[in-house]
Amino acid sequence: MTNDFVPTARSKLKRLPKRGHYDRATVYAVLDAGFICHVGYVIDGQPYVTPTAYWREGDAVYWHGSSASRMLRALETGADCCLTVTHLDGLVLARSAFHHSLNFRSAMLFGRARKIEDPAEKLAKLETFVERLYPGRWQDLRPANAKEIKATTVLGMHIDEASAKIRTGPPVDDEADYALPIWAGVIPVHGATGAAEHDGRLLKGAKLQPSLADLSHLGYQKR
Amino acid sequence: MTNDFVPTARSKLKRLPKRGHYDRATVYAVLDAGFICHVGYVIDGQPYVTPTAYWREGDAVYWHGSSASRMLRALETGADCCLTVTHLDGLVLARSAFHHSLNFRSAMLFGRARKIEDPAEKLAKLETFVERLYPGRWQDLRPANAKEIKATTVLGMHIDEASAKIRTGPPVDDEADYALPIWAGVIPVHGATGAAEHDGRLLKGAKLQPSLADLSHLGYQKR
Repeated sequence: MTNDFVPTARSKLKRLPKRGHYDRATVYAVLDAGFICHVGYVIDGQPYVTPTAYWREGDAVYWHGSSASRMLRALETGADCCLTVTHLDGLVLARSAFHHSLNFRSAMLFGRARKIEDPAEKLAKLETFVERLYPGRWQDLRPANAKEIKATTVLGMHIDEASAKIRTGPPVDDEADYALPIWAGVIPVHGATGAAEHDGRLLKGAKLQPSLADLSHLGYQKR
Repeated sequence: MTNDFVPTARSKLKRLPKRGHYDRATVYAVLDAGFICHVGYVIDGQPYVTPTAYWREGDAVYWHGSSASRMLRALETGADCCLTVTHLDGLVLARSAFHHSLNFRSAMLFGRARKIEDPAEKLAKLETFVERLYPGRWQDLRPANAKEIKATTVLGMHIDEASAKIRTGPPVDDEADYALPIWAGVIPVHGATGAAEHDGRLLKGAKLQPSLADLSHLGYQKR
């Protein structure tokens, strides 16, 4: 298998094709830089967009939720799905309104999800999810029980069809506009974390893993 | 008109109804705390989710883009649309994997968009958009020309059907699990801005509006 996706009618960028990327490395880098996606699905012709947490394992992406979730119930039978991940990196201020823009990295995945039915496989996926978000935490938690595993739906979608779209750098103004005394450039933006707040019911010795002081693996800069 | 939305089959929360809100004040507060949404639309049965910037004016929400945009072309004829805004506020760490959660504010809007056809109305909308993001900037910019206005599509959608979903506060653990020596609480997260970077082609005297040193109106905390 090649490391590139084949652009399709769905995944090929229509506008500004120079911002499009179809190689797995670029798409996966966008996926691995965050953990919140927006999942699109259709019920009776009506589109829905639901935010949820996701994680990638190899050439598949996973997400989870309550077995009663409308989104999961709509998708678990293999309906068409679009999963989009967006990271905003900067506000791009130009000398004309028209050339204002945003610096961002986004990925759009198309496919059909499958439901993880086997409880052991489901538990293994949930462990991967917790460890992706909070490395080292799984072993310290009260173990999941059968009722919890049953109440949780995990969906997986093989990544066959995907694109990334990326804009970086300063504004690009009309050449004549550079003669105008207008400020132009980029205001960088990023996600940041604050100080952890315990819930007031900790037992003596209950400490947050030191590894979680740094959440840069989730795309955050420490405050 | 009442200030509440009527929950419909589309907008009513199926899961955890206590997190649902259907009053305009709550939904609009979520909309007004940010400027990036994810727009869902359907082409030939396939859902698409596209990130874009939006702004609210009264009881309508607007977004814009290139007249060639697939998303705008799909929606400008009045197709069903779902517009979702999500703000992540915190990572919620519990004593069991099952009770881990996220603190967030989201809004989901349903409706059909209309295209702003009149160039003067379109220009006025774009001014509102620029001023929403960058208060005081419009008057300093090189004015938009007819070609740029023509190349830009602006869509508006009246907010008739919407819900907000909000989670706040610490984890809620099973009562027995509070006897376990496991750290539990919230790691707050937020958006932040870095120092503005000019594009290297500024004329003497070109200064960034001091009002833009603070982008808290866009949901950002200054670094």
